[in-house]
Amino acid sequence: MQLYGGIEAGGTKFVCAIGDNTGKILERARIDTTVPEDTMPKVIDFFQQIHAKTPLAAIGISSFGPVDLDIKSPTYGYITTAPKSGWDQFDFVGTLKAALNLPIGFDTDVNGAAIGEARWGNGKGVDSLVYWTVGTGIGAGGILYGKMMHGLIHPEMGHTFIPHDTVHDPFAGICPFHGDCLEGLASGPALMERWGVKSAVDLPDGHEAWDLEAKYLGYAMANCVMTISPQKIIIGGGVMQKKGLLQMVREKTLEFLNNYIKHDSILEDIDNYIVAPGLGHNSGVCGAFALAEQALHVPS
Amino acid sequence: MQLYGGIEAGGTKFVCAIGDNTGKILERARIDTTVPEDTMPKVIDFFQQIHAKTPLAAIGISSFGPVDLDIKSPTYGYITTAPKSGWDQFDFVGTLKAALNLPIGFDTDVNGAAIGEARWGNGKGVDSLVYWTVGTGIGAGGILYGKMMHGLIHPEMGHTFIPHDTVHDPFAGICPFHGDCLEGLASGPALMERWGVKSAVDLPDGHEAWDLEAKYLGYAMANCVMTISPQKIIIGGGVMQKKGLLQMVREKTLEFLNNYIKHDSILEDIDNYIVAPGLGHNSGVCGAFALAEQALHVPS
Repeated sequence: MQLYGGIEAGGTKFVCAIGDNTGKILERARIDTTVPEDTMPKVIDFFQQIHAKTPLAAIGISSFGPVDLDIKSPTYGYITTAPKSGWDQFDFVGTLKAALNLPIGFDTDVNGAAIGEARWGNGKGVDSLVYWTVGTGIGAGGILYGKMMHGLIHPEMGHTFIPHDTVHDPFAGICPFHGDCLEGLASGPALMERWGVKSAVDLPDGHEAWDLEAKYLGYAMANCVMTISPQKIIIGGGVMQKKGLLQMVREKTLEFLNNYIKHDSILEDIDNYIVAPGLGHNSGVCGAFALAEQALHVPS
Repeated sequence: MQLYGGIEAGGTKFVCAIGDNTGKILERARIDTTVPEDTMPKVIDFFQQIHAKTPLAAIGISSFGPVDLDIKSPTYGYITTAPKSGWDQFDFVGTLKAALNLPIGFDTDVNGAAIGEARWGNGKGVDSLVYWTVGTGIGAGGILYGKMMHGLIHPEMGHTFIPHDTVHDPFAGICPFHGDCLEGLASGPALMERWGVKSAVDLPDGHEAWDLEAKYLGYAMANCVMTISPQKIIIGGGVMQKKGLLQMVREKTLEFLNNYIKHDSILEDIDNYIVAPGLGHNSGVCGAFALAEQALHVPS
């Protein structure tokens, strides 16, 4: 039985965990994201203490970003232009490798969650899937032929452009780069600002906010189907905790596709095509185990 | 030197050709697309006559569609729900295989063009690219890790939804499925209907049609970058023959991305990132040779 270390690195906290090759979490710790000089020694200490007793085979990182995933790049394994102070140009992989001397797997948080779901969650048995998170931001990661979708850099689907009916929804959007891109219109903070509430999930059932949210996410899912043609779409994140929203998104996706994509998975079985994460809140950290597992085969 | 047969199968004509493993076209014939009982015997005859003298190693097909690409499906190799009369549920691969007994490669017309460009055109040296065609319809095919983007079915990016400013462009769009999807707003027939002209390329330089066209295609390219993150985007098709349009599309793409995707290929070198087809009008037929080549390794 191999043991893996996993890090789900976010802008607020790092979840550090130990898992096995069934995706089971054996131990976990939460470390606040402050600055690298403070956060990283705690992260390293967590893994060193465990590794001294029960050796780890590899460590995987699902990281906030943007990150450099180009193995041939001199800044491979770096967080590149992070908005989070102190983490800009931080050599994440290099720092861990120097301290622990283990194979390190590294990817974006959403690509990590995607591979976690593919390995042990609701994406088991498919070789292409897209994992979306709709929360403080909107992001998505993808897998094709069992491999992460890397190309030039990595997907940033949360910032794609969708139809915005400015007559019925004059809200300008909150994305500092794009205004009314998907994240600008449909992230948690967009809902809070548009409707003047402290938390999106507090908006009551039947509030027009949810119809609008389902519409924007429905456009995004329809575009995702017609661009990547994944075998499965998984949607997690804080905003998706709103009861009934997932079903509304499925219905809008079908409405927008309008029978154009003729496949039973969509036409007959949308409830099993667009689904919630099978690993709940653990997609990211389990994904980090899966990245560790991959790193054993293609060491970085 | 291997010899390949290639078929670029469209709704108007079939281009049948013989090529070698440098992508060179040695012989070609045009056969009208009428009904399978008329068209296919001519296609088969073309290849049989050549094969009898100089044996072909395999045949590739870049086909209009939609098509069934699932090798495990009982209707693999079929044109499925073609709008073209007579071709609905036509067993394209099976018919050719029965007549010629050669390995047959089969994919969509745009996936074929994508692999043609990757093998011998402007996509040489990259392992992810998207090929767009903007003409009678809008379509796109993609390659990742050197393999076609197949998932549930295949990409249908021409039908994705983009922002449509109905105040400044009240045109409802012509897509029978989606109204104002990308194809509904920006295909050749959409331009003809919106502006009342017989051919899109006849619209004069400086006409507002071209600003609008560049805007819609710019949204599509920005979404493509942020969804698939390809290393290269190639745009062909009849509408793109309009001089200056490609450059306008590049500029709109940069404007919409607004420095969010920080990679030199986009920020510093967009002229080499979004490009015209290196094979000109031959991307599809050369792509068929590349599909034939693939079929030798993974026989269907």
